[in-house]
Amino acid sequence: MNEQNLLARRKAALGPTYQNFYDEPLHLVRGAGTSLWDVNDRQYVDCYNNVVSVGHCHPRVVEALCKQAARLNTHTRYLHAGIIELGEMLVERLPGDIDTCIFTCTGSEANDLATQIARHVTSNQGMVVTEASYHGVSELTRHLSTDSYPPRDRPDWLAVIEPPNLYRGPYHRDDPEAGKKYLALACQELDKLEQRGHKPAAVMIDMVWDSNGPLVAPDDYVLGLCTEVRKRGGIVIADEVQSGYCRSGLDWWTSNIYRLKPDILTCGKPMGAGHPLALMATTREIADDYSQTYHYFNTFGGNPVSAAVGKAVIEVIEDEGLLQNAASTGAYLESGLRELAENHACIGDVQGRGLFWGLDMVTDPATRKPMSEAQMRHLGSLIVEQGVITGTSGRYGQVLKLRPPLPFSRSDADVTLNAIDVALSRLAR
Amino acid sequence: MNEQNLLARRKAALGPTYQNFYDEPLHLVRGAGTSLWDVNDRQYVDCYNNVVSVGHCHPRVVEALCKQAARLNTHTRYLHAGIIELGEMLVERLPGDIDTCIFTCTGSEANDLATQIARHVTSNQGMVVTEASYHGVSELTRHLSTDSYPPRDRPDWLAVIEPPNLYRGPYHRDDPEAGKKYLALACQELDKLEQRGHKPAAVMIDMVWDSNGPLVAPDDYVLGLCTEVRKRGGIVIADEVQSGYCRSGLDWWTSNIYRLKPDILTCGKPMGAGHPLALMATTREIADDYSQTYHYFNTFGGNPVSAAVGKAVIEVIEDEGLLQNAASTGAYLESGLRELAENHACIGDVQGRGLFWGLDMVTDPATRKPMSEAQMRHLGSLIVEQGVITGTSGRYGQVLKLRPPLPFSRSDADVTLNAIDVALSRLAR
Repeated sequence: MNEQNLLARRKAALGPTYQNFYDEPLHLVRGAGTSLWDVNDRQYVDCYNNVVSVGHCHPRVVEALCKQAARLNTHTRYLHAGIIELGEMLVERLPGDIDTCIFTCTGSEANDLATQIARHVTSNQGMVVTEASYHGVSELTRHLSTDSYPPRDRPDWLAVIEPPNLYRGPYHRDDPEAGKKYLALACQELDKLEQRGHKPAAVMIDMVWDSNGPLVAPDDYVLGLCTEVRKRGGIVIADEVQSGYCRSGLDWWTSNIYRLKPDILTCGKPMGAGHPLALMATTREIADDYSQTYHYFNTFGGNPVSAAVGKAVIEVIEDEGLLQNAASTGAYLESGLRELAENHACIGDVQGRGLFWGLDMVTDPATRKPMSEAQMRHLGSLIVEQGVITGTSGRYGQVLKLRPPLPFSRSDADVTLNAIDVALSRLAR
Repeated sequence: MNEQNLLARRKAALGPTYQNFYDEPLHLVRGAGTSLWDVNDRQYVDCYNNVVSVGHCHPRVVEALCKQAARLNTHTRYLHAGIIELGEMLVERLPGDIDTCIFTCTGSEANDLATQIARHVTSNQGMVVTEASYHGVSELTRHLSTDSYPPRDRPDWLAVIEPPNLYRGPYHRDDPEAGKKYLALACQELDKLEQRGHKPAAVMIDMVWDSNGPLVAPDDYVLGLCTEVRKRGGIVIADEVQSGYCRSGLDWWTSNIYRLKPDILTCGKPMGAGHPLALMATTREIADDYSQTYHYFNTFGGNPVSAAVGKAVIEVIEDEGLLQNAASTGAYLESGLRELAENHACIGDVQGRGLFWGLDMVTDPATRKPMSEAQMRHLGSLIVEQGVITGTSGRYGQVLKLRPPLPFSRSDADVTLNAIDVALSRLAR
């Protein structure tokens, strides 16, 4: 099929909403493990797609999907063992006191529901998020996504706090008081929220601040922020769509790394390895309180096919040791990235954990001036020319984002590191 | 597996949010066509589930799902033919000037996005819905669902109008002016909305008023309402989640039956036959306007697997003549239901179209006093004892809802009619 023709047809049937990565869009037709192939059968290493958490088209996940789809696919108002088993598997792994699962289809739906519940149980309306946050596309979660609309349109119930970026924010990694200082900035915004007449219902924290980084926050900052919000009557929502499901290499959930016990935890993308499955999990007390007034029902959420897929993904992660792989390959990737940073001054910072890394790209290391979006787009194209798929992130679109499927191998890391090295050398010319 | 044990485990892992139909929950394990089987291998005729539009576990849909899931499942930021082909197939069938598709995972997401777009392009905030409406579970669409929360919590931007129920509403089928009178009632609410300082962004019409009925509205009412809203600066959103996809037996879309050209059309449940796939479709002009400010992206929406499923569903509908079946079996079912109504005085009204019918159940035909929810629950259990699965609907939960998969046959209809007959005779005792 002709590419230009396909692009024209895409534009005609789908409108301008659908944007492509890359100026020359990738036309992918096949995937397996950490590899993708385009229409000309060219192979790429996928160093970007976390949705396919256990790898593209994992045979066990596909088998579970097909077997259940051929047998029964209804909804949760009939009794079915699948969703119960998935719920139990998750409860075993969820952090702190969280023991009750509600399934949705997308992370947006999970965060939207989490916010509705937080407002209901606290009787407060205020919400706390960071600058350049992303939490979803529903009307409510779009407003919680400060990267998605102009600051002038922010509702007065929204407190927007500085992300704890130890490279690009006001306080840096070499400052032992940085955590306290970021917390003090947050408290100022919490005060202003109350001055505008709103107590906080919840703080919603993307536990890896994906749209800012990724970031690794000072240990005392996260717990301090949650304590502050709770003191003012709010609860804590850990958005683990990006940070959860073994991504960090250290734990199933990044909440545990910070020793945070959230009141609500949400998860999405990686749970279904591409199948639309997401989770809003909370404590029994909060679930009971909410259920006295509302009976949430999501037609597709947690249906027998989604449940079968969700179970298979957890089994694969454990049977294939993907948490351990995220740790070991992650460490290998990190050391390669730090070496690259020594050789390329335009890499201002290397930040991340496990199999989620960001390179903060600068045009001037002294001033930390971010690379422009055009430069980042060009860099991405140079890397894809080398057969590696990456992404961008960051407040100014200046972060080269590396967030591959969890089975990412050392040889995938080698290919990726070499591709970035070559691309940066060409970019410098 | 022990039922009581399974129920206890369900309650433990999933909390009180998950409600079952029936006092003795159905434990279903298998489905095919219009049949479902429980854990004891007892077979039921499914006269309720529209989500599995082309029948349970349709082999062609399952095959399309499995084939694509084994090959590639990414997202819409790489070029892929599947979503384009699905978009083109839909544009060919969509009503009026609607020619641009945006895919989501659920009807809630589609209606949420439709409302965001309506507000953006009109610069108005008001929304118009009917009493006892249902449009979704996100924060925004929950507020558009007047059946889901107490009237005292309605936002001031919401105009709530009387559903055009020609049996149970204030104006009846024998009144040739009923359409005009319902329209006059709606205009009063539109006036009040403007008095509260809000112009309408849109009216959102469930084209079959599912949660009220189903209803068949007076011809002049629907067009008159849309004209009024447009005159006041709003647009028209046809929510065809329930009414679309050949359900009526007359057309792909119920909008066409009323000769309505909506500005936005939404669809969900039946599109993926159980797979989470939904649609927000609009005119090119509106899509362009919205896209100048916002770039909607839905991770799972319209991914290659969802697109393959969506295409297969449309092909099955056309190849198996399911629109024609909805018409012919629907007519057969209707005549049986009308006969039942003659023999059972507790059937106050028979209303619907194609393969979507409601029996408005009364304790007294003269006063039209609705059956209680407890009575309706008992009736549903008596019908399921006869091996037929039905549902309930209506403003007071008084409507016995018949809305089977589209391949529903005459013999399925016979079994269903007999089951209702027996159940009503037992109920009367």
